[in-house]
Amino acid sequence: MNPVELIRKKRNGGALAPEEISWLVGAYAKGELPDYQMSAFLMAVCFRGMTADETTAFVDIMLHSGKVIDLSSIPGRKVDKHSTGGVGDKVSLILAPMVAACGVPVPMISGRGLGHTGGTLDKLESIPGFRTDLTIDEYREVIRDIGLVMIGQTAEIAPADRRMYALRDVTATVESIPLIAGSIMSKKLAEGIDALVLDIKSGDGAFMKTYNDAVTLGRTLVGIGTAAGKDTLGMITAMDQPLGAAIGNWCEVEEAMDCLRGKNVVDLMEVTYALGGAMVYFGGKAASIAEGMALCRSAIWSGAAHEKFLQLVERQGGDIAYLNEPGRVPAPRHRIEVRATSSGFVAGCATMKLGVLAVELGAGRRKVDDVIDPTAGIVLAKKVGDHTEKGETLATISTNREDAVRRAAEVCSASITIVPERVALPPRVQALIDRDGVKPWTAPTYY
Amino acid sequence: MNPVELIRKKRNGGALAPEEISWLVGAYAKGELPDYQMSAFLMAVCFRGMTADETTAFVDIMLHSGKVIDLSSIPGRKVDKHSTGGVGDKVSLILAPMVAACGVPVPMISGRGLGHTGGTLDKLESIPGFRTDLTIDEYREVIRDIGLVMIGQTAEIAPADRRMYALRDVTATVESIPLIAGSIMSKKLAEGIDALVLDIKSGDGAFMKTYNDAVTLGRTLVGIGTAAGKDTLGMITAMDQPLGAAIGNWCEVEEAMDCLRGKNVVDLMEVTYALGGAMVYFGGKAASIAEGMALCRSAIWSGAAHEKFLQLVERQGGDIAYLNEPGRVPAPRHRIEVRATSSGFVAGCATMKLGVLAVELGAGRRKVDDVIDPTAGIVLAKKVGDHTEKGETLATISTNREDAVRRAAEVCSASITIVPERVALPPRVQALIDRDGVKPWTAPTYY
Repeated sequence: MNPVELIRKKRNGGALAPEEISWLVGAYAKGELPDYQMSAFLMAVCFRGMTADETTAFVDIMLHSGKVIDLSSIPGRKVDKHSTGGVGDKVSLILAPMVAACGVPVPMISGRGLGHTGGTLDKLESIPGFRTDLTIDEYREVIRDIGLVMIGQTAEIAPADRRMYALRDVTATVESIPLIAGSIMSKKLAEGIDALVLDIKSGDGAFMKTYNDAVTLGRTLVGIGTAAGKDTLGMITAMDQPLGAAIGNWCEVEEAMDCLRGKNVVDLMEVTYALGGAMVYFGGKAASIAEGMALCRSAIWSGAAHEKFLQLVERQGGDIAYLNEPGRVPAPRHRIEVRATSSGFVAGCATMKLGVLAVELGAGRRKVDDVIDPTAGIVLAKKVGDHTEKGETLATISTNREDAVRRAAEVCSASITIVPERVALPPRVQALIDRDGVKPWTAPTYY
Repeated sequence: MNPVELIRKKRNGGALAPEEISWLVGAYAKGELPDYQMSAFLMAVCFRGMTADETTAFVDIMLHSGKVIDLSSIPGRKVDKHSTGGVGDKVSLILAPMVAACGVPVPMISGRGLGHTGGTLDKLESIPGFRTDLTIDEYREVIRDIGLVMIGQTAEIAPADRRMYALRDVTATVESIPLIAGSIMSKKLAEGIDALVLDIKSGDGAFMKTYNDAVTLGRTLVGIGTAAGKDTLGMITAMDQPLGAAIGNWCEVEEAMDCLRGKNVVDLMEVTYALGGAMVYFGGKAASIAEGMALCRSAIWSGAAHEKFLQLVERQGGDIAYLNEPGRVPAPRHRIEVRATSSGFVAGCATMKLGVLAVELGAGRRKVDDVIDPTAGIVLAKKVGDHTEKGETLATISTNREDAVRRAAEVCSASITIVPERVALPPRVQALIDRDGVKPWTAPTYY
């Protein structure tokens, strides 16, 4: 095949045949197609998109560029969750052990923080000793033994995606729904799962800023999963303020531990239960999402989810003493209270700005080789809808970076809007997407 | 500067500042920006275009990536012509000596055939001994001595364009008006000219298939030339049938020689006189284009243009014996007459198909390192508007390629449409573009 003709076809708005996509991406993965042709193709995709058939072929060739893990010898339907990324998104830390405690094996391969968003791996690694770099054999062993495993991506999984992602990152071709979807799904489909639940974040703190973009991404993701023969469900969830109170790494682990111990951080648990209900349903342990949600609540109330998380941490080398006595983690050098400059109701939160601020405090990476400070972060004392008196604490900022302190309080204060009138709270879970399309979501009324 | 941010800006439809364009292209020319970032940028330009300021900065940095020839020590205003390329376009061979014979120095740096179109260099090189690879010093000497020089591009001129063009060729980013315009003008502005006349071909046999695309390209080219301080004029000319009768190399030289000797090949000379009139006007030897055209006609009638061409050929090493006795050039092995299968009027000509056919006969290159057969080509006996009887010769095909013979007659016959009714002839020169915009063109009535 002639790569120039394939690039031109895409440029001119045509659809490539599945075998043309496979050839192009396959040749790239093998190092036979140069970067400069792939980057021109990717830019054309940014403008022209991909058809469902193209996307399926794209995912398939990336998936099979590496190892596809087979967990079929392990009993039960294996179910995972993926989030498109947000600020304060510690859902996985609660969700994975909760669903595993319901008897559904959860094999989870997670990522690191990206841009202004946090990453599950970075959070887990803030627990001293926790190993996320298991081999595929260790991964298989842990999921078999305890029904739960949480690791980082290994070099064997979807290497074509890794190469492609690095190229996209330096050629401004990251923001493309089929490319984003292809990258996510080629990794998720390699995990050995039977079903997948997707948390598609929408709003200022998400990569998809609008509901419509989130729906488009969601439909693409669900379409790919379904075409690959996996039960796949998407939930569009709000990312117009951080999820829960904590933004950072260790502080998010602490908040997740509180929730696992039964604390009801409302917005965080609403999303966690909805996703969990779907996972338990897909895992065959409940007859509906609502029933799955009820089982998840029991797993929290009974302490089984908490127990499962401690078991995971121990099994993957983490020191649970830090989880049981949070005071063991050294306090950061600087801790500043941000106080309300007027009385009223919190109306909004510049979520992306707070995410960027957390990175600047040391909670994320500005360059690939930056080292994360696990204790850096922001903990919100007030969320959208809350009332505050002038002078009350809105948030607490923690950092070891002298140079970040002064600006931080200012940025944080400016990010939180206070108005005199009471404000309405929009729903957290906004819609559900399955193979048949977008459906409204109404939380079961019994809780 | 951050190249990813610049690519993203263009991708999102923003305009880069002149210094941003300069930095990007400059870094690429110096080998500091990798191909994969430039190709992503070029693809974004294909979709988003460039503003006039961006295009000016783009041309400027490419122009100054190499040597800009200074001919200011040579008296007179130096004027060149550039054609965007067509089929049977031997205008330069007649035009350059004709204008030089009017006393306007013509320093011409030409290209080779590209795709289905012919190139002046290939035509000149079909004259045994003719050297197109003069050094810049020789170039300067010849123009000083005889007021005319015709060479190929040297490695010193606009090397950034050469590198960029090679990349565009393999990344399907050739078809973009600002990129095409930038490539043309960065080379033309390096020639040492004071003024430039552009022949912008429009129609099936041209790269711009529609009048509107040709106008857009023309306006961009004229805009760049004007911004660079050169008098620049564009003429949109019809390329919906080959120009003149001959398509090939040696056969085109023969037709050009006939015209230089006074033969009036109507369509060819109409275009040649219009362009020549503008060049003589820009050269300061006439008070108007019309007056310039009259001078050009005198230069043909008097034999001065013919004399000037022979002088050029001798000076650049060509053997004029071949021009004076065309029979010296060996006849090609195969010569086939294509005959009309019905009586009527020639209504149309699939010009691009004929151009491609000429390449297949040996007149052009299918691969970069193909060797051209100077005697291969097609000579039309009938043009659009001509009457033919069934069985009359429509065209004569010449080739040394045994394998091309059979198909050639068929393709050629199918390319020429014959209808029963008389057909109207559209104008050859369709419009004029100067710094103020597009204007209608009416040929002076006195001839």
